[in-house]
Amino acid sequence: MIRHGSTIVRHASTIAVFLLALACAGTARPEDGYDLWLRYRPLDAPSQARYRVAAQSIVAARDSATMRAAVAELQRGLRGLLGSEPALHEELTAGAIVLGTPRNAPAIAALKLPLDALGREGYLLRSATIAGAPAIVIAANDDVGALYGTFHFLRLLQTQQPIERLDVRSSPRVQLRVLDHWDNLDRHVVRGYAGESIWDWWKLPDYVDPRYTDYARANASIGVNGAVLNNVDANAEILTPRYVAKVAAIAGALRPYGIRVYLSARFSAPIEIGGLATADPLDPAVRAWWAAKADEIYGEIPDFGGFLVKANSEGQPGPQDYGRSHADGANALAAALAPHGGVVMWRAFVYSQHATEDRAAQAFDQFKPLDGRFAANVLLQVKNGPIDFQPREPFHPLFGAMPKTPLMLEFQITKEYLGFATHLAYLGTLFEETLSADTFARGQGSTVAKVVDGSLHGYALTGIAGVANVGSDRNWSGSQFDQANWYAFGRFAWSPEGSARAVAEEWARMTFSNEPRFVQSVVEMMMVSRETVVDYMTPLGLAHLMGSHHHYGPAPWAEDLERPDQRPVYFHRADKDGLGFDRTRSGSGAVTRYAPEVARVFGDVDKVPEKYLLWFHHVPWDRRMASGRTLWEELVAHYSRGVDGVAALQRQWAGLAAYVDPERHAEVTAFLAIQAREARWWRDACIAYFQTFAQRPLPAGLDPPEHPLDDYERLRFPFAPGR
Amino acid sequence: MIRHGSTIVRHASTIAVFLLALACAGTARPEDGYDLWLRYRPLDAPSQARYRVAAQSIVAARDSATMRAAVAELQRGLRGLLGSEPALHEELTAGAIVLGTPRNAPAIAALKLPLDALGREGYLLRSATIAGAPAIVIAANDDVGALYGTFHFLRLLQTQQPIERLDVRSSPRVQLRVLDHWDNLDRHVVRGYAGESIWDWWKLPDYVDPRYTDYARANASIGVNGAVLNNVDANAEILTPRYVAKVAAIAGALRPYGIRVYLSARFSAPIEIGGLATADPLDPAVRAWWAAKADEIYGEIPDFGGFLVKANSEGQPGPQDYGRSHADGANALAAALAPHGGVVMWRAFVYSQHATEDRAAQAFDQFKPLDGRFAANVLLQVKNGPIDFQPREPFHPLFGAMPKTPLMLEFQITKEYLGFATHLAYLGTLFEETLSADTFARGQGSTVAKVVDGSLHGYALTGIAGVANVGSDRNWSGSQFDQANWYAFGRFAWSPEGSARAVAEEWARMTFSNEPRFVQSVVEMMMVSRETVVDYMTPLGLAHLMGSHHHYGPAPWAEDLERPDQRPVYFHRADKDGLGFDRTRSGSGAVTRYAPEVARVFGDVDKVPEKYLLWFHHVPWDRRMASGRTLWEELVAHYSRGVDGVAALQRQWAGLAAYVDPERHAEVTAFLAIQAREARWWRDACIAYFQTFAQRPLPAGLDPPEHPLDDYERLRFPFAPGR
Repeated sequence: MIRHGSTIVRHASTIAVFLLALACAGTARPEDGYDLWLRYRPLDAPSQARYRVAAQSIVAARDSATMRAAVAELQRGLRGLLGSEPALHEELTAGAIVLGTPRNAPAIAALKLPLDALGREGYLLRSATIAGAPAIVIAANDDVGALYGTFHFLRLLQTQQPIERLDVRSSPRVQLRVLDHWDNLDRHVVRGYAGESIWDWWKLPDYVDPRYTDYARANASIGVNGAVLNNVDANAEILTPRYVAKVAAIAGALRPYGIRVYLSARFSAPIEIGGLATADPLDPAVRAWWAAKADEIYGEIPDFGGFLVKANSEGQPGPQDYGRSHADGANALAAALAPHGGVVMWRAFVYSQHATEDRAAQAFDQFKPLDGRFAANVLLQVKNGPIDFQPREPFHPLFGAMPKTPLMLEFQITKEYLGFATHLAYLGTLFEETLSADTFARGQGSTVAKVVDGSLHGYALTGIAGVANVGSDRNWSGSQFDQANWYAFGRFAWSPEGSARAVAEEWARMTFSNEPRFVQSVVEMMMVSRETVVDYMTPLGLAHLMGSHHHYGPAPWAEDLERPDQRPVYFHRADKDGLGFDRTRSGSGAVTRYAPEVARVFGDVDKVPEKYLLWFHHVPWDRRMASGRTLWEELVAHYSRGVDGVAALQRQWAGLAAYVDPERHAEVTAFLAIQAREARWWRDACIAYFQTFAQRPLPAGLDPPEHPLDDYERLRFPFAPGR
Repeated sequence: MIRHGSTIVRHASTIAVFLLALACAGTARPEDGYDLWLRYRPLDAPSQARYRVAAQSIVAARDSATMRAAVAELQRGLRGLLGSEPALHEELTAGAIVLGTPRNAPAIAALKLPLDALGREGYLLRSATIAGAPAIVIAANDDVGALYGTFHFLRLLQTQQPIERLDVRSSPRVQLRVLDHWDNLDRHVVRGYAGESIWDWWKLPDYVDPRYTDYARANASIGVNGAVLNNVDANAEILTPRYVAKVAAIAGALRPYGIRVYLSARFSAPIEIGGLATADPLDPAVRAWWAAKADEIYGEIPDFGGFLVKANSEGQPGPQDYGRSHADGANALAAALAPHGGVVMWRAFVYSQHATEDRAAQAFDQFKPLDGRFAANVLLQVKNGPIDFQPREPFHPLFGAMPKTPLMLEFQITKEYLGFATHLAYLGTLFEETLSADTFARGQGSTVAKVVDGSLHGYALTGIAGVANVGSDRNWSGSQFDQANWYAFGRFAWSPEGSARAVAEEWARMTFSNEPRFVQSVVEMMMVSRETVVDYMTPLGLAHLMGSHHHYGPAPWAEDLERPDQRPVYFHRADKDGLGFDRTRSGSGAVTRYAPEVARVFGDVDKVPEKYLLWFHHVPWDRRMASGRTLWEELVAHYSRGVDGVAALQRQWAGLAAYVDPERHAEVTAFLAIQAREARWWRDACIAYFQTFAQRPLPAGLDPPEHPLDDYERLRFPFAPGR
């Protein structure tokens, strides 16, 4: 049976929607960012009219929690965007959206769609004619694919794309797309700048905060399918029955959205909560303890994802405490999880407690010899760069170097080193830069993306992780623009060869406005923003110049850390002759960990891109740069450009007031003012400091530092967040 | 000029409102408690019709930030409650609400209202005829009075009271009505169970969270006019220029709402941030430092309220470190503040580090001799009971004993000892119990209320403080019902002789529903709730039986504290003969600190109310109680009654689902389930423990403890909130 809507009814409905929108505007709460990119605010009238033709009804089964979630999201989205909610039908009507799988939707089964290659999570959107009537089909092999397809469809409407001749096929290129929450059990979030942990451990499992569902919706909308709930510096308590029950309650809230929970496991848990005398991974009692613990967890959480482990790293316990290798350690836990289908994500972020070797080479040297020695359900989690989530690093040399070990790329979404919550720094460009970097592992085109998606080495397991920037702040991420980094992480995890610009545009349209002038301007702001931060913090390949412990603000002078390889002076190596860390063969030799094609470029001071210059080379202050300036002049120019860049962001944002609600506009404006002051601080403190080595005047026309160096060195920040 | 609305227009508007309400219900966010008792949801149609006649327009000047706040609140409230916003006029129209002071409203000046006795903060609501037309007048001497009157008027509508023949006069009985935030500068809230501090110190002063304004609105609506922003265990850093600038930004947000900011001052700040060698209050350099610091603060915050000081208490520095008295210490700070009109709130919560004396007598013995020795701008802040905010304590013996020293009553709104966020415990009854207690200081009727409001001793300064339960949780207080305790605090601070039942009813109507069945049932739940907690935690005058440090759950056995007078065993003194702390003349003698009329009752085991029995007496297990039961039987009966009481609350709440939105109903249901389990735990653990002394069987028909005592003793809670 086909029903047709009348024009009159449609007009009446338009008027009603207009009235209602007006009315709700009066009583609605101010915008606060809680809705993220899923705001579903009414589209303009022409778009509504255009889309409403194709979205008159929904045909879908609601025979699983995931299908119910998909249908509810579709209803919510269409109600918000179009102002009216299409009816939910069992049978087909004109302008229907047909949603489901061949199993739960006979209409989809009848279409015999080419779903095979889409896997469990992929989906297909297609305009079709069913029983003589036009319809939109959202089809998948599994309910979660239908959910992902629903979000894709809604995104098309949110971003005002045509839906007349739909023919979209999409499936994730990476299997495990995981957020790592560095959340302690007291709700403190390490390197978190968005309030407390969203996990209210104390009230769990009795009270399951409805916010967990909104978290799950947001993740499902970008394809994130895993969450490590607790900090990598783990407390063993999370593995006790009392806490496993709490974890199970969270798992229950996330499950309908295709998200598995994982836990960070403390390697010494068999001692701390198991009562054993050792955590030696080859000890049978230890192995039995982990096996029993896995059984217990899977008894409560049948789809538990597995363990993330930070071992023998920054003081954490690990297999080396017992003379065993990282592979021994990882494999012991992997053996416990394997019967249940769980994985171990073993972090490669290690550097010796008594470093003599260049820190940039240590992870490589420890793990490269272990390639092939890990169990099949182990992934090695490798940070994007060889040091630690700096504003810019070259890609990690392990990428391409471990053909027999699945490497899980780890990004940091929270801005530990890029200005905390307040600096505008869109990380899509950082993600793209890393993923498109060429390892040359198998000749040109051996990008990090191809390592990570498994295509280069034929990994059976693939994964990508992002250290979450999610917290209890109303806006989730600490700032409106930091939501874009969560969004971008998900989109790049799904499509590692994606485009930062395209992702920024999607996000800006959904989060703020489809107005072309707004979109164009905001996307430009986002696209330059991370480079601006690099300029005023760590230009030309510098790194790790921030204040000790809290990582806030500039402290290139800092020597107050116990370990030499955590001190800024270790990294920049400024002296009267020049600046930078010589990692060439004549220096630390770390550059040799890259493939020869890469090492030849990075290792040659004349060939290395200037953005990595001081990462790999100790360069004389008067060396002539591509611009014709000396290194010293170029350094000052970059710092100054960073400051000017923030001023430009401020001007651009001020010009966009007409397109943004006053609440979010004001918040961003206030944060940009903080960023402007802190950018100037970074510039001035770093220039004042490096000038003590360079002993050269500032280039003409550039402001000298506002204060003497001493003033910057005296600053203390005892209550910086995220410690 | 008088305008009349037509019936047709009014009907059309009713229909529109109905349509709009329907529409907004579709897209509105779920209820989450953020709006507190200021929800302003649409009233039923008859009420709207009735009120709309009298609220057709607003006549008010907006010539100050406070008047603008009052008008905006009136518009917001009427828009929400009545569905349409009265126009704002300069001139009088029919059905006008005339709001203001004789200074800013000519119509009010012309009425020559009897405002003199109302003071700066009082107000008058009156039905009047102005220029031949009916009007409602909200009049005050000062803008802040007009703001308070506005909230009173809105409360009448929110609770569906008649407004036809208004004649209300109200002014606060207490001058300083202050919330004490125990908020650290890292946003941790000590004894907070509602998330982090709402003060985002890190982003201040640049970013002033709009939430501060909603906090101010809530406080102004209940008459709170001061906020101590930081923890009494203070860090001196708050007094540095960097933080004073942050405090000034908060002050700017609160000022329009009549709220002054105060700071907790660390007594040793002259050493820590002043670079002095001493903090001796009689040292001229120290006094000069405080004077300069006060000048500096008032330079930024002209209406700064003053300092709250915890000195020589639980390890905090204080004047006794230099052999000076509390009066010496308080007066040194007072001298610095006096030129600016600021006050010192000096806490009387002290007990010796090396206690030999009963802790219940120590504050009295230290401060009573100092009566008359404090400067005129010092208040002594005294907790409601002599120990520490227990579920029940007798009133503090200092009340009535310091006729020459203004005593500022300190309540704890946050439920450190009454079940954290999840237990339903309405504290209005506790507030009323304390305030109505008779000190007999000047004969019968010398209630604590009359001490606190200054009428008994003629204090020139009066104050009441509440330790805030406000945090970053979306619902502000950690639970829906804990909002009522914030509300009740404000209402009792304004009217210390108020009624807990009346306050509960107001709150329930505004926060949930005016439906009579709902109101009656919820008020009954609230009225019994605190006694229920007393029953399952500390019946019959017991106190301080909770777990060490975190104060969560029962631990009457605990001896793991360094100081004897912080150990539960110190307080309950159970032995084979009986139970309770002998504070009579033959015991510690603490009872003698009360007036003779009171001491005669409390000190006599036959006269003392049973609710205070074990506070003052060590009582044989077989002593016959009023009920005819033995003490042991009565103890078990109380514990059991507490558990049954929670079950009753659960049943009552389940029956109210039809009156409450599903989100808040579910949250309260979940919390009651936690409370039920924890009540049982308290009962069973305490009975199991006390039975080891009583050596008697449980009365017939009562369940034995679920687990052996050992099991309860083994429980550990390393991540309890609020530490």
